[in-house]
Amino acid sequence: MIAFDYCTPTEYVFGPDTETRAGELSKEKLGNRLLIVYGGGSAERSGLLGRVRRSLTDAGIQFKELGGVKPNPTDDLVYQGIELCRREDLNAVLAVGGGSAIDTAKAIAGGVPYEGDFWDFWAGKAVMDKALPVGVILTIAAAGSEGSGNSVITKIDGEIKISLRTNVLRPKFAIMNPKLTETLPEYQTACGITDMMAHIMERYFSNTPDCEVTDRLCEGLLTAIINEAPKVMADPENYQARANIMWAGTLAHNGICGCGRQEEWTCHAMEHEISALYGVAHGAGLAVVFPAWMEYVSQYNSDKIIQFGRRIFGVDSAPEAIAELRRFYSSIGMPLTMKELGISSPDIELMNTKLHRAKGAVIGNYVPLDGTATAKIYELMSLS
Amino acid sequence: MIAFDYCTPTEYVFGPDTETRAGELSKEKLGNRLLIVYGGGSAERSGLLGRVRRSLTDAGIQFKELGGVKPNPTDDLVYQGIELCRREDLNAVLAVGGGSAIDTAKAIAGGVPYEGDFWDFWAGKAVMDKALPVGVILTIAAAGSEGSGNSVITKIDGEIKISLRTNVLRPKFAIMNPKLTETLPEYQTACGITDMMAHIMERYFSNTPDCEVTDRLCEGLLTAIINEAPKVMADPENYQARANIMWAGTLAHNGICGCGRQEEWTCHAMEHEISALYGVAHGAGLAVVFPAWMEYVSQYNSDKIIQFGRRIFGVDSAPEAIAELRRFYSSIGMPLTMKELGISSPDIELMNTKLHRAKGAVIGNYVPLDGTATAKIYELMSLS
Repeated sequence: MIAFDYCTPTEYVFGPDTETRAGELSKEKLGNRLLIVYGGGSAERSGLLGRVRRSLTDAGIQFKELGGVKPNPTDDLVYQGIELCRREDLNAVLAVGGGSAIDTAKAIAGGVPYEGDFWDFWAGKAVMDKALPVGVILTIAAAGSEGSGNSVITKIDGEIKISLRTNVLRPKFAIMNPKLTETLPEYQTACGITDMMAHIMERYFSNTPDCEVTDRLCEGLLTAIINEAPKVMADPENYQARANIMWAGTLAHNGICGCGRQEEWTCHAMEHEISALYGVAHGAGLAVVFPAWMEYVSQYNSDKIIQFGRRIFGVDSAPEAIAELRRFYSSIGMPLTMKELGISSPDIELMNTKLHRAKGAVIGNYVPLDGTATAKIYELMSLS
Repeated sequence: MIAFDYCTPTEYVFGPDTETRAGELSKEKLGNRLLIVYGGGSAERSGLLGRVRRSLTDAGIQFKELGGVKPNPTDDLVYQGIELCRREDLNAVLAVGGGSAIDTAKAIAGGVPYEGDFWDFWAGKAVMDKALPVGVILTIAAAGSEGSGNSVITKIDGEIKISLRTNVLRPKFAIMNPKLTETLPEYQTACGITDMMAHIMERYFSNTPDCEVTDRLCEGLLTAIINEAPKVMADPENYQARANIMWAGTLAHNGICGCGRQEEWTCHAMEHEISALYGVAHGAGLAVVFPAWMEYVSQYNSDKIIQFGRRIFGVDSAPEAIAELRRFYSSIGMPLTMKELGISSPDIELMNTKLHRAKGAVIGNYVPLDGTATAKIYELMSLS
């Protein structure tokens, strides 16, 4: 274990009907003038937004709204939100949705008190030291953004997708009603499961020795997700399985799985290039990237991949571990190749160039990878 | 899973030499006039208190000191601390030590702003809604008080030992340097290990169905502790094993193992009567109580005990699970009977009467127990 500093102050309010506490929690932890950020029409159609508006109004909170957040959220809406907050003198942001709505809300929250371009933080040109408070009403179990300090935004100009991580952006509260996820399309549910597993695996595949506690937590969470996933896929209205998946998604990314160890994040970086360029669902992209990465790196460093196979799937070799992971992804309807992802001729050179332009000549810790290596991994994904 | 509200805002600052950050963290999170609360002379002799005083002084923080906290901390020192804080106008409390110092610091912090007798909170006569901020420099991996809102205090008059739990008392920060635990006596190290395991097991033995995520977390943590324990017992200066045990002790009790489930706490209540009456180490008492409780309740409800045996020890029945747990406790030098605990003729009637006077006629959830049942469990501990 290496030294760490860990603080996850988000209040998780978990259970049925918890969205009715939006007003009370916002009043206590956010402020009295909110911007509500949400995605498409489903939050409106389901009546969720109505319940949230009512709860806020009952608590005497004023608010404006910014809808239309899309998957792989882009900077344009962030600029709109910042402008709206400034114009209307709003002092907090409430996200209603999944990772895209939350990440947009966070970016707006970080941008409002900053005089420069909010993108400076994502581009590494400035360090965020304050932000408007953010609250969350979660509707998708996937990104873990409800409990993390992360925000992934894509800059339209240049199709650059970057993840920022700062404790400043950790939400003040996250309202988590598993029932709200019961109406998610099957594919999106599976993408969420893949995404949360990847958040754990990016922390698990580490060379830091003597991380028994964190290893066991990661393995326990992965096992739980793998056990619960078939239940939600078979019966989307299985509240208990939805609840387990939702809570796992938060713990996968609120930092508890990374305490005391060097983290990895190569697969996320590689996937970000795919989704930035082709607009695929992030989780689906990860199902393609992760096994290919494991296949490549296990040639050089297989210890942790063998441990993963043994403890999660009860198999004894790296190739079997990878095969089991692919079998699992496939069982929940996830793609395993670029082709299955809907990309028939991926522009590997462009993705690879952008990847190393963003991340440097060599990326990763578990096995450091240069451009030749990552190109090979992209090629592995392109084999049918 | 049942609904829950979970917030653990403590900042964990973990690693070598982290006590040198006491001043900086206190300034940021506590205030400028502290009461330092600590136990015996070891913190002084080791030089730890000197380093802490220096760090505080360098940060421009003024402080008074209250030493002499004993294991199973009592109300007398709490009254002294409250009085001292009021007289000297101190606005925060910094504990240097293990659970006893931290619990005393918390009780003082809760008592200062309250006009009545601080014991009112522990006696259930008042609800704590504010407290001075508390910081922690941890020297014993055991009680988990560094990350919990719990404080266990014994009222000398009547030998009443009561645990209070409130988010108001969660520490603002916990400085955790595993190196500080390397000089602990073997017995105390083992008591700490037993205590943290009990904190997990009190949450694990629950009838709440469908807690796959939390079950797996509990099992992962227990496995990690059982794997690391022999290492610290064999080599007290094994930093990495100490680090794993220390972090496990925090996660065992900061609430993460209880999210979404009904908790148990019968064994703690039964042990509190033993240590209140006979002054034994809490962890050692738990090693005697827990297997006896499991033996009794498994006659009526064995499901979770069988799951525990399978997933932790790889055995298939409740008796084998209990035998394995006893074997583990014994392997780290823990007692298994009242006699081994040094109590040759335990006053079961007195303990049992006090237990039910404090907790009601029927206690526990996994299997509700009346006075006849708990007396039988105390008797099981007194065999051989």
